[in-house]
Amino acid sequence: MSDYEEDTVGLVETQYITFEEGVQLTSGFILKPITIAYETYGELNKDKSNAILVEPTLTADAHVAGINKEGQVGWWDMLIGPNKAIDTYQYFVICTNVLGGCKGTTGPSSINPKTKKPYGLDFPVITIEDMVKVQKMLIDYLGIRKLYAVIGGSMGGMQALQWLVDYPEYVRKAIIIATSARSSPMCIAFNQVGRVAIMSDPNWNGGDYYDKEPPRAGLALARMIGHITYLSDSSMREKFGRKLQGKESYGYDFNIEFQVESYLQYKGAHFVKRFDANSYLYLTRAVDYFDLTNNGKRSLAEAFKNVKSKVLVIGITSDWLYPTYQQKEIVLALSANNVDVTYQELESDYGHDAFLVEKGQMNYIVKNFLSKNKVRDIMMKGIKVLKPEDNIEKAAQIMLNESVTHLPVVDDDNQLIGIVTSWDLCKAITGHYSKIEEIMTRNVITVNLEDDIHVAANKMKKYDFSALPVLDNNNKLVGMINVEAITTVLGKSYFP
Amino acid sequence: MSDYEEDTVGLVETQYITFEEGVQLTSGFILKPITIAYETYGELNKDKSNAILVEPTLTADAHVAGINKEGQVGWWDMLIGPNKAIDTYQYFVICTNVLGGCKGTTGPSSINPKTKKPYGLDFPVITIEDMVKVQKMLIDYLGIRKLYAVIGGSMGGMQALQWLVDYPEYVRKAIIIATSARSSPMCIAFNQVGRVAIMSDPNWNGGDYYDKEPPRAGLALARMIGHITYLSDSSMREKFGRKLQGKESYGYDFNIEFQVESYLQYKGAHFVKRFDANSYLYLTRAVDYFDLTNNGKRSLAEAFKNVKSKVLVIGITSDWLYPTYQQKEIVLALSANNVDVTYQELESDYGHDAFLVEKGQMNYIVKNFLSKNKVRDIMMKGIKVLKPEDNIEKAAQIMLNESVTHLPVVDDDNQLIGIVTSWDLCKAITGHYSKIEEIMTRNVITVNLEDDIHVAANKMKKYDFSALPVLDNNNKLVGMINVEAITTVLGKSYFP
Repeated sequence: MSDYEEDTVGLVETQYITFEEGVQLTSGFILKPITIAYETYGELNKDKSNAILVEPTLTADAHVAGINKEGQVGWWDMLIGPNKAIDTYQYFVICTNVLGGCKGTTGPSSINPKTKKPYGLDFPVITIEDMVKVQKMLIDYLGIRKLYAVIGGSMGGMQALQWLVDYPEYVRKAIIIATSARSSPMCIAFNQVGRVAIMSDPNWNGGDYYDKEPPRAGLALARMIGHITYLSDSSMREKFGRKLQGKESYGYDFNIEFQVESYLQYKGAHFVKRFDANSYLYLTRAVDYFDLTNNGKRSLAEAFKNVKSKVLVIGITSDWLYPTYQQKEIVLALSANNVDVTYQELESDYGHDAFLVEKGQMNYIVKNFLSKNKVRDIMMKGIKVLKPEDNIEKAAQIMLNESVTHLPVVDDDNQLIGIVTSWDLCKAITGHYSKIEEIMTRNVITVNLEDDIHVAANKMKKYDFSALPVLDNNNKLVGMINVEAITTVLGKSYFP
Repeated sequence: MSDYEEDTVGLVETQYITFEEGVQLTSGFILKPITIAYETYGELNKDKSNAILVEPTLTADAHVAGINKEGQVGWWDMLIGPNKAIDTYQYFVICTNVLGGCKGTTGPSSINPKTKKPYGLDFPVITIEDMVKVQKMLIDYLGIRKLYAVIGGSMGGMQALQWLVDYPEYVRKAIIIATSARSSPMCIAFNQVGRVAIMSDPNWNGGDYYDKEPPRAGLALARMIGHITYLSDSSMREKFGRKLQGKESYGYDFNIEFQVESYLQYKGAHFVKRFDANSYLYLTRAVDYFDLTNNGKRSLAEAFKNVKSKVLVIGITSDWLYPTYQQKEIVLALSANNVDVTYQELESDYGHDAFLVEKGQMNYIVKNFLSKNKVRDIMMKGIKVLKPEDNIEKAAQIMLNESVTHLPVVDDDNQLIGIVTSWDLCKAITGHYSKIEEIMTRNVITVNLEDDIHVAANKMKKYDFSALPVLDNNNKLVGMINVEAITTVLGKSYFP
């Protein structure tokens, strides 16, 4: 196999699911039906515990990795694929086009069932909360009860934060990149000038242009403005300097003189081919509204009070659109809730865009965070247990119902006193035992919930066990850890 | 007198001068006639050595201080007036509307003599060099052979730098604020999107709109974009935060929601009342072109090789449009030429705009630089001298021609051996002497060119002399310093 084939998820296709019942939006509006465009890569494991939801940026679609039949490479392919940080050998990766977008998920260019014509400005104003609510419908539809991780940068980071706040039980880990817990006035200002550019274009026509010439000039200008904010002074100097475009000396006119002008003009012209102007309005507005403090009605620490996930927050040294103090504010508020949160900084001159560009650093940081696990991060909680006085019929019944082969035995104080395996049950039948205490193994190999998962993996290898009981610091039983969970994070090669 | 009256230059009026011969521009185009709109405050002293040229920013007019008859306060009034940093008791202050502007100086809205209609896009593309060339015509017209200082921020700083490079003999001191020796690609990019905004407005009509509806929407948008770049993330948070505009909760629509939106919209709408869209195109283009290295054809140090002025360079900590490394680059290149250059930083959260806002710091820094003088900074050079063997007729003739009352007497090695005053000539006439050596005072009070001017002033006071010879470190005569020059920098109150 070539390198190329080794690290790509290959040919991919966008899928669609329609929810006729729709959804009630933050604004109160009930939007229905709702179609969600999404892509998935890798395989969902049996207990559906290895799903990673990748959150799209402002103008990104569901096509985040691999190559589609039009030959387009996914927008974050550098991070997602076999053996990459988001390893499709281990994880089941999901990415959606956001609500309000124009790439298959319901948005202003979708058909309004009432008029049979595109919504245009009749589309309701949406929020980041609404986007996440719709993603949650997809996650439920896929039968996933807990995402292994949610990851996103910029507007994607906002969606990831919203998941933590709205569905804290659904997220094991979160990676929040180059974003803010509330849009700054500078962000709002740049979003506003982009919208004014679109709405000032006569072709915009109050949002009603789908059967006419669209507002290309306005949308291109909005994109040019946005693009400057994604770069940095130093990356622009590095990339363009003051180099002239196809000429040796100034033309002294208003045509393109500098390479930087040519680049932005190209970016603008290219963008209008793939994006809908009304979607740009709705999505930037959603970003404006985003504020986890509800505009100061609660503290950020209060907003995060139910967060249980393990969180990695990433800032970019040269990002002036979402400066690093904004990511540090998130870290502080999470820490105030005793959330297990880490902050890392991408050392980069690329500005806000760095998280889409810095392949090496991003892969290193993300891979490390996703794979570096304590037993507590991946153990099964709420497991069934036996008491010593239970009979073996009960044990057999539980094993059958729960599809497990190991059952811990605890006393009334939840202290572990033994373990029963399906093999022990065979022993009981041949030896005519009836009580658990007669057949259980008393010298049990255990792990502590704060142990690194490698400790658990090595014990399992050494003793050839497929599951181990997990104890807390008071030696009380708190869960079980099994081979499948470890394989999910350490890779299939770990247990050959 | 009230405080108000004490520190304003009062009612002012813009003046106009037309040069029929016009000027040849950098592009080769000969533009004629040229009218310059300008204002002056304070009085030009007898030897015309106290003139300070204030350089306008991108959209500033000639009305920089005082109040005009429309009641408008000058755009840098905080810095200019009686007892302010640019003290109109001491200095004669000049400010012009730039070439290409729309406030009285010839620009694209001026009448093209060939067509008898406004130039529009037939106006030639101009450069910072051209702006300064035209200012030089005004300075010559006013009979000023050396400006005491040139001062400017942003595009004004570019003009001040251009003065140093093109007319090094004409500038005694320069203050260069929040600017660059070459426009960065980020500046060019923001200028470009502003121009695209204007040129995308159908009302722009190829620049031909003076008898029609002007491109208000496009110009307003350009201004909104520009305005964001003049602020900083932190000043916007301080000023607006996420405060809503006249409402308690989100309206979930595309009307104004946030105060920052309202502010920018107001700034845009206000701007179109006072500014011409075509001027915006021409002036931003001139900024794009600005590069003292001629796009890398020479080093910045080479560009500054003839600079003789004393220079103060000011950077602003929160300026991300012209980050401080750009000012430090200027300092480095000047230092390489042994120019007497100082760097100071404005500690401010206000971003690029800080030099127009930070009244206290700006007054302190500028006043200090303008008034802190060595004898060498204000002495007269190239003075006439006598030899001991000269006769008194020659001395009388020189005094008459040069309007001086003191003439140093030097030997063949330019060592000072005496001084002759007009009073000595009276002595010669009454005593029937004919040779200089018979009447000169041999015990001369002198100052060193490195002395602080206070040293010179105090000696003059002590001995009641109105002028003193200036010696270099080898005791050779290098110039004269007089009461008038000292009064210019220390104020009239110094010699009551």
